[in-house]
Amino acid sequence: MVPEGTVVVERFESEVLRGNPLGDPYVREIPVYLPADYEADPSRRYPVIYWLHGFTGIGLSSIAKSLWTPSLPELMDRVITAGAPPAILVMPDGSTRYGGSQYINSPATGRYEDYIVQELVPYIDRRYRTQPGPDYRGVVGKSSGGYGALVLAMRNPEVFRGVASHSGDMYFEAGYKPFFWKALNVINRYHSVAGFLRAFDAMPKKARDAADALTILVAMGQAYSGNPDGSFDLPVDVVTGEIRDAVWARWLEWDPVVMAARYAGALRQMRLIYIECGTRDEWNLHFGARILHGRLQALGIAHEHAEFDDDHGNIQYRYVESLRRLAEALR
Amino acid sequence: MVPEGTVVVERFESEVLRGNPLGDPYVREIPVYLPADYEADPSRRYPVIYWLHGFTGIGLSSIAKSLWTPSLPELMDRVITAGAPPAILVMPDGSTRYGGSQYINSPATGRYEDYIVQELVPYIDRRYRTQPGPDYRGVVGKSSGGYGALVLAMRNPEVFRGVASHSGDMYFEAGYKPFFWKALNVINRYHSVAGFLRAFDAMPKKARDAADALTILVAMGQAYSGNPDGSFDLPVDVVTGEIRDAVWARWLEWDPVVMAARYAGALRQMRLIYIECGTRDEWNLHFGARILHGRLQALGIAHEHAEFDDDHGNIQYRYVESLRRLAEALR
Amino acid sequence: MVPEGTVVVERFESEVLRGNPLGDPYVREIPVYLPADYEADPSRRYPVIYWLHGFTGIGLSSIAKSLWTPSLPELMDRVITAGAPPAILVMPDGSTRYGGSQYINSPATGRYEDYIVQELVPYIDRRYRTQPGPDYRGVVGKSSGGYGALVLAMRNPEVFRGVASHSGDMYFEAGYKPFFWKALNVINRYHSVAGFLRAFDAMPKKARDAADALTILVAMGQAYSGNPDGSFDLPVDVVTGEIRDAVWARWLEWDPVVMAARYAGALRQMRLIYIECGTRDEWNLHFGARILHGRLQALGIAHEHAEFDDDHGNIQYRYVESLRRLAEALR
Amino acid sequence: MVPEGTVVVERFESEVLRGNPLGDPYVREIPVYLPADYEADPSRRYPVIYWLHGFTGIGLSSIAKSLWTPSLPELMDRVITAGAPPAILVMPDGSTRYGGSQYINSPATGRYEDYIVQELVPYIDRRYRTQPGPDYRGVVGKSSGGYGALVLAMRNPEVFRGVASHSGDMYFEAGYKPFFWKALNVINRYHSVAGFLRAFDAMPKKARDAADALTILVAMGQAYSGNPDGSFDLPVDVVTGEIRDAVWARWLEWDPVVMAARYAGALRQMRLIYIECGTRDEWNLHFGARILHGRLQALGIAHEHAEFDDDHGNIQYRYVESLRRLAEALR
Repeated sequence: MVPEGTVVVERFESEVLRGNPLGDPYVREIPVYLPADYEADPSRRYPVIYWLHGFTGIGLSSIAKSLWTPSLPELMDRVITAGAPPAILVMPDGSTRYGGSQYINSPATGRYEDYIVQELVPYIDRRYRTQPGPDYRGVVGKSSGGYGALVLAMRNPEVFRGVASHSGDMYFEAGYKPFFWKALNVINRYHSVAGFLRAFDAMPKKARDAADALTILVAMGQAYSGNPDGSFDLPVDVVTGEIRDAVWARWLEWDPVVMAARYAGALRQMRLIYIECGTRDEWNLHFGARILHGRLQALGIAHEHAEFDDDHGNIQYRYVESLRRLAEALR
Repeated sequence: MVPEGTVVVERFESEVLRGNPLGDPYVREIPVYLPADYEADPSRRYPVIYWLHGFTGIGLSSIAKSLWTPSLPELMDRVITAGAPPAILVMPDGSTRYGGSQYINSPATGRYEDYIVQELVPYIDRRYRTQPGPDYRGVVGKSSGGYGALVLAMRNPEVFRGVASHSGDMYFEAGYKPFFWKALNVINRYHSVAGFLRAFDAMPKKARDAADALTILVAMGQAYSGNPDGSFDLPVDVVTGEIRDAVWARWLEWDPVVMAARYAGALRQMRLIYIECGTRDEWNLHFGARILHGRLQALGIAHEHAEFDDDHGNIQYRYVESLRRLAEALR
Repeated sequence: MVPEGTVVVERFESEVLRGNPLGDPYVREIPVYLPADYEADPSRRYPVIYWLHGFTGIGLSSIAKSLWTPSLPELMDRVITAGAPPAILVMPDGSTRYGGSQYINSPATGRYEDYIVQELVPYIDRRYRTQPGPDYRGVVGKSSGGYGALVLAMRNPEVFRGVASHSGDMYFEAGYKPFFWKALNVINRYHSVAGFLRAFDAMPKKARDAADALTILVAMGQAYSGNPDGSFDLPVDVVTGEIRDAVWARWLEWDPVVMAARYAGALRQMRLIYIECGTRDEWNLHFGARILHGRLQALGIAHEHAEFDDDHGNIQYRYVESLRRLAEALR
Repeated sequence: MVPEGTVVVERFESEVLRGNPLGDPYVREIPVYLPADYEADPSRRYPVIYWLHGFTGIGLSSIAKSLWTPSLPELMDRVITAGAPPAILVMPDGSTRYGGSQYINSPATGRYEDYIVQELVPYIDRRYRTQPGPDYRGVVGKSSGGYGALVLAMRNPEVFRGVASHSGDMYFEAGYKPFFWKALNVINRYHSVAGFLRAFDAMPKKARDAADALTILVAMGQAYSGNPDGSFDLPVDVVTGEIRDAVWARWLEWDPVVMAARYAGALRQMRLIYIECGTRDEWNLHFGARILHGRLQALGIAHEHAEFDDDHGNIQYRYVESLRRLAEALR
């Protein structure tokens, strides 16, 4: 019998997200997992792991129960039961109406990095019996969440000292660019990006190819090449599909494999860097993970890189790998 | 602004399911939706709609929030806001470890019909301010849940007087049989059904083709051709793929298009029969719906049959069609 | 260096096919392969193997060269070079405008069995130095051609005494029926079979799903349930998808697994019966082959049954299995 | 009734290809189509159109008959019957054991450009009653053949003065690069390119994903980044999937959208430039065609650009567009 932690769903009012350019809610539902012994020992303080959901997810997605796939709290229960030190788990909501924010600040979506780092982390530290200080704080996620974890850790070593990525976005050359042209085929059905967005908003059921097109060009464009006026630039010409080098260069500034050298100092402060990806990832992210692994090695930055024989989807069973490592590293 | 109803999650202890042959839990989490005005008017009583989830779902699946797909409570809020009479919504859990029970009694899975009809309905009537009597009680669902709704209504007109099916299983000849042989290909990788079940249980991530094989042969076999000793018969020879006519005949006894004539008396008592299916249903269920439509017509049973241009997946946006009709018919 | 046989393409005028109901050509291009030593030894006579192409093929398809896939003459060269007795190979054309005739007589397509058995075989015996008599004559093919081979041999033991089937159509319950409903989805786009056929005729490029629909319902309907007036019946209701039992029963009369008992006497006269199928056949034909294998065993009819790990497409490399066996059995 | 031209298959011995590095045959079967009136009017001379087959094709592929797809001679018959001036059609073989040569000279495959331009063209002019001079000579093809046509025309305006491309390879950024990583997944199963090639050679049936991997990395690498010693470089690191910029730059030298400016002088001499592509091309080649269109416009080079609603496969019905235009332009 696995002792079960408790889940509290916080309705978190973000000042930072208020009035965001996409009109997304500034109140977010954020589940917080408290280990099974949290109530029993009121003097104990716990490390905190921030779990970042993937694209099209929301904060609540990570706690949804289902028949054959464990939820994040169930996984954390297992990890603790198996002997790892207990930790608090916070599951922020980084969604936008077009799929997700990549957990970074952008004039086209909102200040999602600030919302987590400047607002949510202090709030959690006030509300719960956390162990204070970055040494006891980690960040991890899957897919866009794995990306967000790496970027938040690189940019905020004074906040996070443990980071893990499951199949995170990286090496955009292989992870994003190959999918641009299929996305353009979809967008061009509607004659313009604006037309496409109107059509997307109106779909009672979001078509798969439309959601993919939205992800790869609109949401990523909003995240990586947003403009001060709230608009965003595409890294390809919509009609001819020709790469716009200047915009693409802006995207690459946000590519973890490019950022690694720039943020080497921060990465060296981490108590844990764990990167894994399945060897059949449909978005080619295992190649990105290998490249990041090589660059970290070249920079002499301690880290762990793992692969497993699977694709990008439904890899919840892998999450114990990071949860256990983080719980142990941040104790 | 849509007024939001409240959701209570009942932990329902079923005596009927205790000791069920698959060792599935007898305590089930069952969400209950109470309309926005439930608290405001403590003298008001409400009709009750039972919503049956589809295969591989659980009771909680229907209340899970997500970015682009409305949950059942959100849909019910919309329906009421648009003018339909308020109703209570109960979302029973009909899952088994192998995917689902089809909401019927079987010696191989448990007495799921009894659990709902004999246990849960009275319990809900005791716990909530329901309008008593079958005239104010409906049942509806999607896919296996649509199937379950039809079968429960046919067999229990003293309990339910409104029924709706979204893309429900029917005309097994087209809805199940075509998929037997692909399922056998999967099962035969493991040399026997027992070997397959062991492998399936051990998969940390359930492979899609394995889950499909499980659905179409194992779970349906357990539902429709279970034996008194808890075993079940397959309607095909595992190795040669030859149809076993005697077992197949047992399945057909549970096919709504076959049952319709047998239960015509019950169906005539319904205040609403609503059947719909998408015209591109991957499981060919639109053909089944047309056949049932024809048979109900031939029997002179009032009903409504609708089609829409979509497939079997993510059709939550269609659920307002049945919720509205049921709320109006059962007022 | 493999000695190469010669290929002659006969322009064969068929009296039997003249005026056929579909208006297909009565002159057919029929390649004839003569072994490498045919000219060198003008006194030698050779057994004859009739090779029947698959659906949507034509007689010439079997001799088309390509980069990575050997043609039938190339395969026969290899077989002979490897030590098998030389044989003449005749590649009749059994095509119709809607894909193929299944090599049987039907009032809806023409007398394709008679064309081969009554016209072509005697013609070949007159034109080439064949060994006379059924003992030296075999028939083999792939897919619809494997079907045709079995049916022609069963019905004409006075003509053929060796038969082989590569992934031939059999056990229609699994090989045809599962695909009816997808076909109806396509046909219903055009509101009727006649409308569908007009649309198909007009397509400059035949869409894959349309060609599949044509195969499974139109061409097979024309072959198995053609009517004296040249029309044909479908085994399903076009709109409801309900199986029409009487028509389906007519199809089953032509199912090799059903025919086996009826033609057991003929099958017992064969000098070779060879049946093989890939274990991942998309049309489920490996199940049919296993069933036929079991029925032949039960009837005490000598035969060989083989399986291989592949699907239905591009299995030319398997043809040496039958060509070698036939060449040896019919020597 | 369409008058039918005659097809002669030349067995052409190429001195240029003798001893090529891949050990491919130096004798090639090259079909030559002579218009229906060729024999009737022995004094008439004809323009010549060179048709270049696509990847994995051979010279003979273009004359293969089939049930629903017209061969190139049949299409040319139609074009002439509809009023276009008659022309001779030559169908060179540009295949290599790994799929194709792209019709260019490479130390890793052989001098395929020279073989066509220096050897085959003079040979055809000697053997047939051609109209002498580049003004009466055109080159066209599909996919890799469309690519080859453009490159041969750009580089040899003294030989060809008409060029057309059906869905030709161009803008390698979208047409090749997106497919590198899936190809690496396949190659990495065999641990090295050499291991992959050994496995590929040994496959009795070439797996689709293996053939795709071969095309996109091996064959294109041999064509665009071959080395003097017969080896070739890949534009990506096999293990990490990182783009090798220096090798990729060599590829781009061969990209028609890059070459256009360099060969503007040659292109200006063309009597016809016709470029078309389907708007759903799986290899994204419609984007390349739009980019080339834009660059030709910017250079003030007369040309015609067309699109049609289809994908990359089985677009034979489109070939009449180029055959008619070339026959008229080169008269």
